[in-house]
Amino acid sequence: MHRLELAKPDGRRLTLYGRQPLPAGLAAPSPFADPLSAGPHLRWHVLRGEWVTYAAHRQDRTFLPPPEYNPLAPTTDPANPTEVPAGPWDVAVFDNRFPSLGGFVPAPPELIVPTASAQGHCEVVVFTQDRKTSLGALPLDHIELLLQVWGERTARLGAQEAIQYVLPFENRGAEVGVTLHHPHGQIYAYPMVPPVPERMQQVAADHFAAHGRGVLEMHVEAERREGARLLYDGPHAVAFVPACARYPYEVWIAPVRPVEGFAQLEPEARADLARALKTVLLKYDGLWQRPFPYLMAWYQAPTDGRPHPESHLHAQLWPPYRTRDRLKYLAGTELAAGFFAMDALPEDKARELQQVEVDLP
Amino acid sequence: MHRLELAKPDGRRLTLYGRQPLPAGLAAPSPFADPLSAGPHLRWHVLRGEWVTYAAHRQDRTFLPPPEYNPLAPTTDPANPTEVPAGPWDVAVFDNRFPSLGGFVPAPPELIVPTASAQGHCEVVVFTQDRKTSLGALPLDHIELLLQVWGERTARLGAQEAIQYVLPFENRGAEVGVTLHHPHGQIYAYPMVPPVPERMQQVAADHFAAHGRGVLEMHVEAERREGARLLYDGPHAVAFVPACARYPYEVWIAPVRPVEGFAQLEPEARADLARALKTVLLKYDGLWQRPFPYLMAWYQAPTDGRPHPESHLHAQLWPPYRTRDRLKYLAGTELAAGFFAMDALPEDKARELQQVEVDLP
Repeated sequence: MHRLELAKPDGRRLTLYGRQPLPAGLAAPSPFADPLSAGPHLRWHVLRGEWVTYAAHRQDRTFLPPPEYNPLAPTTDPANPTEVPAGPWDVAVFDNRFPSLGGFVPAPPELIVPTASAQGHCEVVVFTQDRKTSLGALPLDHIELLLQVWGERTARLGAQEAIQYVLPFENRGAEVGVTLHHPHGQIYAYPMVPPVPERMQQVAADHFAAHGRGVLEMHVEAERREGARLLYDGPHAVAFVPACARYPYEVWIAPVRPVEGFAQLEPEARADLARALKTVLLKYDGLWQRPFPYLMAWYQAPTDGRPHPESHLHAQLWPPYRTRDRLKYLAGTELAAGFFAMDALPEDKARELQQVEVDLP
Repeated sequence: MHRLELAKPDGRRLTLYGRQPLPAGLAAPSPFADPLSAGPHLRWHVLRGEWVTYAAHRQDRTFLPPPEYNPLAPTTDPANPTEVPAGPWDVAVFDNRFPSLGGFVPAPPELIVPTASAQGHCEVVVFTQDRKTSLGALPLDHIELLLQVWGERTARLGAQEAIQYVLPFENRGAEVGVTLHHPHGQIYAYPMVPPVPERMQQVAADHFAAHGRGVLEMHVEAERREGARLLYDGPHAVAFVPACARYPYEVWIAPVRPVEGFAQLEPEARADLARALKTVLLKYDGLWQRPFPYLMAWYQAPTDGRPHPESHLHAQLWPPYRTRDRLKYLAGTELAAGFFAMDALPEDKARELQQVEVDLP
């Protein structure tokens, strides 16, 4: 992996990554000239016991791009700079111009609820220069590079004193609110372990204390043994519709041997994980012969400086469709109670995905 | 409040409620003749540590209604029975034909994750006979009746040994997945305290232990003192955009004096709570002069037979819009991390709603 770190005219950072060496002399463009001068703050949700971030400056996006302007494509016209330069890079990571955490962080206001500085970091990850492709369609060694990039970003962000948790994710498709179709994801670096990972860490730690082994490690063993919901079963990585899926086409992807995060993956495990990921994404797109929307989140150990033997790097993918033409809306019981109701069995949905043929080299 | 309990031909229950006495001789129709013969089961989500229900029989809805058929309108043609009879009732409650909990409950399957019987209950609450109106447009004494009905259902369901939590809610609008526009809501009665209320109960109990007073009681006091986000400030009830809102137009509605649930409301508090609810819903619909979609959930104390001095009946309303023409999608950080990012300040959104004039008698 080759990397090149650059500074944008407005002070934000850009890092380019390549499978091949990157030439010196590349400069970081920006659609924005002025440094950030406003930013988010945190408020404590008194009933739920969790932090919420308020980034009202995000509304002040005075930047009105011309139609067809794609900020994630390499800059070709210096009069219309994008977020990334032309050059032989494969993956680019830059600071979000409208961050929900970090950037310019003002002192928090005094309110009737506790408040705090919105420390943290929000990055945009451009998966490829090609706006017309998709993550699943990228070559395996390109996907492997992305897994390395996620590891490198996690290590760098997690090393900061303020950062307790790093979450790489991809929102894909208009159905989940994405308006920019150039293949990309985001990384949020949080100043706390946020509620969902916090809960999962607690469950995993309790299980580890009781059994001396990880809950996902044991679940992966059981899914492989049973086989009914498997989508990929490699020497080092596995993908399946979990027996306890909350979304009809939910899939988990994980290395067989637990590691705390991307940075701890051995090369063979990383290569097999890339195959598992590519297999799942191609099955998704093949199912209805159209781009399949999803939310994909990669869970790692907290970056709180403590060992986390209970952690097991993995992805959870949550597509919003129930059937080819019906969305699964999250409503009363899911959002207000946190209790998910499925009207499909994971075994049936797994069979649909198993039947999609995928040809990997 | 007058009530009449009836049995449907397929064995489900129907209860009619009226401000006026209900005549004897009403019969309960059903679009379905056969009793339920399949039902849901629970599976344990091993990573999140929560139950998920699987109601695959919901897909087998062989019932294909004619266009314009409205199952929540009073039956006029006995050859096309709906779910409710003609008659002078105001609110009707019946067992959901496709319940996610309860109904016909088979023994759970043996799987690689823990499983359990999907005990519980799912009810449909028809708010009015008039398909063209809305909850907010109903007369105050009709809304008061509904609050009484919610209390009566909670008491009856909660008295069952298996039921630990009762949640009345309304999903309103196509934007939140509702296809049936006749004003109605649902009641879920759970065999456990589900994750979101469980977390809120824990936060409230910790606060009560530390301060000797309820967290919402103290927050209501602070919102009234400050006033900046208030939408309704009556002698017994209050409504406001909370300082820690997670949705741009989020509103909380509560009695000023804490009670565990609807059944514990004094008549004056119930009447004022109806005024607060009506005020908020009319402001919502008035804001853009069109029906305003939302998810409304009413949180009460668990029905586990223990006292809950920390509980404080209240509604949380979560509209899906950020602005007049932009939806707030829940994506990576909200769903995968449980960390909400707002790009509006509650103070600004409260001002928008404050400026909508509402005329109550």
